[in-house]
Amino acid sequence: MAQGPYKLVSREFQPEPTVVTIGGVTVGGPDVVVMAGPCAVETQDQLLDAARAVKAAGAQLLRGGAFKPRTSPYSFQGHGEEGLRLLAAARAETGLPVVTEIMDPRDVDLVCRYADVLQVGARNCQNFALLRELGRAQRPVLLKRGMHVTVDELLQAAEYIVAGGNTQVILAERGIRTFETATRNTLDLSAVPVLKERTHLPVLVDPTHGTGYSRYVPAMARAAVAAGADALLIEVHPCPEEAWCDGEQALTPEAFATLMRDVRRVAAVVREPAVAATP
Amino acid sequence: MAQGPYKLVSREFQPEPTVVTIGGVTVGGPDVVVMAGPCAVETQDQLLDAARAVKAAGAQLLRGGAFKPRTSPYSFQGHGEEGLRLLAAARAETGLPVVTEIMDPRDVDLVCRYADVLQVGARNCQNFALLRELGRAQRPVLLKRGMHVTVDELLQAAEYIVAGGNTQVILAERGIRTFETATRNTLDLSAVPVLKERTHLPVLVDPTHGTGYSRYVPAMARAAVAAGADALLIEVHPCPEEAWCDGEQALTPEAFATLMRDVRRVAAVVREPAVAATP
Amino acid sequence: MAQGPYKLVSREFQPEPTVVTIGGVTVGGPDVVVMAGPCAVETQDQLLDAARAVKAAGAQLLRGGAFKPRTSPYSFQGHGEEGLRLLAAARAETGLPVVTEIMDPRDVDLVCRYADVLQVGARNCQNFALLRELGRAQRPVLLKRGMHVTVDELLQAAEYIVAGGNTQVILAERGIRTFETATRNTLDLSAVPVLKERTHLPVLVDPTHGTGYSRYVPAMARAAVAAGADALLIEVHPCPEEAWCDGEQALTPEAFATLMRDVRRVAAVVREPAVAATP
Amino acid sequence: MAQGPYKLVSREFQPEPTVVTIGGVTVGGPDVVVMAGPCAVETQDQLLDAARAVKAAGAQLLRGGAFKPRTSPYSFQGHGEEGLRLLAAARAETGLPVVTEIMDPRDVDLVCRYADVLQVGARNCQNFALLRELGRAQRPVLLKRGMHVTVDELLQAAEYIVAGGNTQVILAERGIRTFETATRNTLDLSAVPVLKERTHLPVLVDPTHGTGYSRYVPAMARAAVAAGADALLIEVHPCPEEAWCDGEQALTPEAFATLMRDVRRVAAVVREPAVAATP
Repeated sequence: MAQGPYKLVSREFQPEPTVVTIGGVTVGGPDVVVMAGPCAVETQDQLLDAARAVKAAGAQLLRGGAFKPRTSPYSFQGHGEEGLRLLAAARAETGLPVVTEIMDPRDVDLVCRYADVLQVGARNCQNFALLRELGRAQRPVLLKRGMHVTVDELLQAAEYIVAGGNTQVILAERGIRTFETATRNTLDLSAVPVLKERTHLPVLVDPTHGTGYSRYVPAMARAAVAAGADALLIEVHPCPEEAWCDGEQALTPEAFATLMRDVRRVAAVVREPAVAATP
Repeated sequence: MAQGPYKLVSREFQPEPTVVTIGGVTVGGPDVVVMAGPCAVETQDQLLDAARAVKAAGAQLLRGGAFKPRTSPYSFQGHGEEGLRLLAAARAETGLPVVTEIMDPRDVDLVCRYADVLQVGARNCQNFALLRELGRAQRPVLLKRGMHVTVDELLQAAEYIVAGGNTQVILAERGIRTFETATRNTLDLSAVPVLKERTHLPVLVDPTHGTGYSRYVPAMARAAVAAGADALLIEVHPCPEEAWCDGEQALTPEAFATLMRDVRRVAAVVREPAVAATP
Repeated sequence: MAQGPYKLVSREFQPEPTVVTIGGVTVGGPDVVVMAGPCAVETQDQLLDAARAVKAAGAQLLRGGAFKPRTSPYSFQGHGEEGLRLLAAARAETGLPVVTEIMDPRDVDLVCRYADVLQVGARNCQNFALLRELGRAQRPVLLKRGMHVTVDELLQAAEYIVAGGNTQVILAERGIRTFETATRNTLDLSAVPVLKERTHLPVLVDPTHGTGYSRYVPAMARAAVAAGADALLIEVHPCPEEAWCDGEQALTPEAFATLMRDVRRVAAVVREPAVAATP
Repeated sequence: MAQGPYKLVSREFQPEPTVVTIGGVTVGGPDVVVMAGPCAVETQDQLLDAARAVKAAGAQLLRGGAFKPRTSPYSFQGHGEEGLRLLAAARAETGLPVVTEIMDPRDVDLVCRYADVLQVGARNCQNFALLRELGRAQRPVLLKRGMHVTVDELLQAAEYIVAGGNTQVILAERGIRTFETATRNTLDLSAVPVLKERTHLPVLVDPTHGTGYSRYVPAMARAAVAAGADALLIEVHPCPEEAWCDGEQALTPEAFATLMRDVRRVAAVVREPAVAATP
């Protein structure tokens, strides 16, 4: 099979899959793990409502942004440490471990004090100063593929973290930039079997950013699991039309519950041993 | 929902799905239809072996190229009418209706004499002279999305055919051109829910050209069905390493049989009424 | 240097440049040739006004579409043979040879009766049935690069024509499809030095379709000549705001005259022997 | 004309061009400024040889990387502060101001002690933590467009810096990611007139990274100036075949001298008032 310009993250180096453990949740094992919650932490009520809803539907982790990478300096940039505190409070209330984005290498200690998984956003996929710092962190990292980054370059970005000593890395496909405008990005689901072939790291798919519209998310969540994804990242908001950012791509709690039911059905047929053995 | 610059093919114009009937096979109904066979018709034996194998595994149509669009003028260009005759003979032997490519508006009558479905390749997706001629043909058309064509432009290309009087059109997603080189093209599975929203025409996915490597085809075939595809087009060759063209993307009969089993399992859970009702 | 999968069109096969002769005009020699005129032939007056204006400004060929490839079947499709007649009349009046698009292999004889150069549009760049027919035509061909077509694939498309016996081929860069939306396409001017390295065929640039907005055309016309283009194709309309199609990208006669002056100045400094010798 | 989602950097906000002053050099005025030097600072001799050569040919700034963003963690990452010291020594020797890359917001003070212009690489174009820090820096910033970043998003990235108080920003087009593989990236020269229309900030073009091969750089340098670029960034190495990184895209001193002569000729004809007034 293909051998890219990376070592520690390759299947050749480690044939058996890496299983990332977060609290009692394992990513990369037999079960599909779903991380869900709002784009941004807005208020205590909004976050708790979202957390309870996604937990009730079966999500195993809570996502929410405290530091938001925004294309415009005039958009809401997140609540920062106050947002992290609200995430920790939601974890205390619901028991869901928390995944949140980190954008600045100077914030690693701060974010590690509150969060269970450190997310690297697509725009920082090749922010090597940040990747190096995360190689020294004591938390699993969710590394999103940049909009212009090839699968092999994503693996090299992960190699920065693993070479630094942190082997707990989850790779995320979240859509690449193409000419198509019907969706916000083009979700490259073929990256799932390609990654499963080339690396032992678990693979997550983010159909929310991949499509950009909530009405396309359930179909792509099912497809991601059918393609072999180990985990999903789904934006859910108690009231999408009132979301401070990206409301058009957030699912309502009801739509998310339906998505969870359907995803479980697909997972049941594709992740049984006989099927999983086919590439 | 979105309304593109097309009329007859839109959901607004016709809310109920179009069902394309080919012999006794219906595309666009409850069942997922699989069309399979070799890239090119090479010899009578090769084609018959392929036809028997795909039929045994459950395929409902036989694909095979008699006129081959090749990037280089020095590559094998197909057997032409002799290839069509071999396809008709394989249909007589196996009972499988035949889908084959047409490249030239002057060949419509000829190809209609032999084939059950006329395929328009990606490079001819906006060959309007050909599309207009197919609007007058008495055969269903399988219209492949061009590598640079948006979903809305694909629908406008289909509108050329339907406006000409031929309503039997199947749309095919087969991968678009992006910067990623791990796969031959980038299979845009998000196009499936987008198309199902915007048009009543059935939607097929070609994971063979979408990925370009046989080892990625099964995962993407499952994902396509999970995303809502009505049909699949899969290249199968009795002996891929001896194929005259594109051997690296053809499945063996054995791999195809496994794919068929897995696709049926996914179809069983995603196409039941409760799931199918979610977008 | 790089050797692509083509023969007759390669620099290795023929080191000296091909010069295409159209009436008394030569493309591929020391002078930059400008072909200009409206997107579509609309009326006799519109065409004659355009023809006189572009001639007065120094254009050497008249362009105008009689068969128009339109994304939608409901857009103006061109006047067909009547448009060809108007083009021939404009040639008789102004002395400018005529370049016009051909879309259907059945129209080769018809278009050859009226036109001096047969243009293959971007959407037909890999319409191999058409390319083969043009290999037998007695007219120079202007072959536009498809929006998804690599430089090496463009050369293979040209190889179809040259291998058929027609060595009078001009290659045209007119923009490729990317994610950028500020321009209609992304004009790939790097293709000019790449093509000049790999082929002996002359290279034309179409900054009108490459940018899609008339206000960006002059800068890109100058840049194309500075990059080494042998010819330019520019849309000019006597009254762009009343154009039946693509008015936002057509130059007024006044703007075109300024463009011609500036292009000549750039050509004077980049096409002198000492400069032209650098790649 | 178009108004993007940015304020301070827009032409509407400030119609007159921003002129960035670096030592005695002004970028954004009547003259085209050329910044040249090696990809990476390797040794004192290598850097001094390069500095003397580019100065002799007429370059006004010296470029060289001390912190190198490398796709692989196992590639040479630059000499860090020692590289900065060598750059300062080369400036002392030649009088050329120095432009060098910064990758980490924690390095701003350090790099400002040595460098005259702080370069943000394409992969950090939307590294908002870094951009915010540079808004507080007392040095001009050279902001490179990311491989997946639209022109309007580049302007929003610049807005982060300007909104932070640093108005001395130069925008750089250095190629975007497309499907074309003949060049390393696709140099989007149309971005030059688009940027000149939408912003008052000066625009630089990097034909070295835009093409990836030294033999295409001269043609694209000429084209960039013809399109209206205010500045060029060119990689030059005393001995490209021995370069520690990216040798295939570095010019020899001799080729650079020829490029400079040709660029000056093009600048002389396109930057005179009458021509410069056309868009």
